[in-house]
Amino acid sequence: MSCQVFIAVSMDGFIATPEGGVEWLDDVDPVDGDMGWSDFIGGIDALVMGRGSFEKVLTFGFWPYEVPVVVMSSTLKDVPAELADRPESSTVEISDLGPNDLVAHLAERGWNNLYIDGGQLISSFMNEGLIERLTITTIPVVLGAGIPLFSNVNDLTWFDHVSAERFSNGLVSNIYTARS
Amino acid sequence: MSCQVFIAVSMDGFIATPEGGVEWLDDVDPVDGDMGWSDFIGGIDALVMGRGSFEKVLTFGFWPYEVPVVVMSSTLKDVPAELADRPESSTVEISDLGPNDLVAHLAERGWNNLYIDGGQLISSFMNEGLIERLTITTIPVVLGAGIPLFSNVNDLTWFDHVSAERFSNGLVSNIYTARS
Repeated sequence: MSCQVFIAVSMDGFIATPEGGVEWLDDVDPVDGDMGWSDFIGGIDALVMGRGSFEKVLTFGFWPYEVPVVVMSSTLKDVPAELADRPESSTVEISDLGPNDLVAHLAERGWNNLYIDGGQLISSFMNEGLIERLTITTIPVVLGAGIPLFSNVNDLTWFDHVSAERFSNGLVSNIYTARS
Repeated sequence: MSCQVFIAVSMDGFIATPEGGVEWLDDVDPVDGDMGWSDFIGGIDALVMGRGSFEKVLTFGFWPYEVPVVVMSSTLKDVPAELADRPESSTVEISDLGPNDLVAHLAERGWNNLYIDGGQLISSFMNEGLIERLTITTIPVVLGAGIPLFSNVNDLTWFDHVSAERFSNGLVSNIYTARS
């Protein structure tokens, strides 16, 4: 079982504006390649997100994910009709399980490599000691305010730094693994 | 005139614990060299800090700086007696000027390369458009809470990323310059 993070963050540690906006990411200079995205997503069995992220994605007007998605929510019951009949490789489902139970449940289905997305969810999985690897790409911008990547982490936690890669557009991608 | 920053930050963007503690930095693994510090400080004419940082340094029991220090404060009047008679290369003085006036005043004395230290001071100098270069070294630790590096920045601000250097202890130093 491996829970992983792949996320972009501002220099001041925010993943979105206070209202959840990510339009500032549109001002990132273009770059050859996808900055590690396809390598990362190719090793993922399912993406796990919270209700807030899910509702944000629904506003896009299209479904952007080509992997199965599990939305963690105790209030949502059914996925919207337009997402109910997707191909097996990119289903969408809702779960009211907590982090540990969900990870165990998905492992029984052979989904061992999970992509954990969204600030609150990342923090709650970290608090359960479940996050094994983080790829954090820093955008050279200070937002001044926003939704923090790490919002509710309980304990000081050291990681091992694996690698730093600078891309030609000035973004830097750092990979960290849990320190055992 | 150039106002520069050289600072260590946690993965969640904090420069100290909520109480101002930096003892977590003691757990950084040792490394050959000084991670750019002597190169940086060799190009500095004076260090500018706020009253909070100054009072923290006073608790160290020794004066750690070998460059002139200017403490920005509207309430402090005189430096403590033990700092009043230091060599010309590392004097300590107090100024009640604001960022722009202080920079102009120090430039008249030939102090053009200023090291701006402390979260609040860095933000207030940024808000005046005075910060030209930042060296930010990320420590592979999530603190969970603390004093943010960027605390009161008013506007979304893009920087140019100059370089990323990974040290053998897993720290990564990124240099940014103001985008003109």
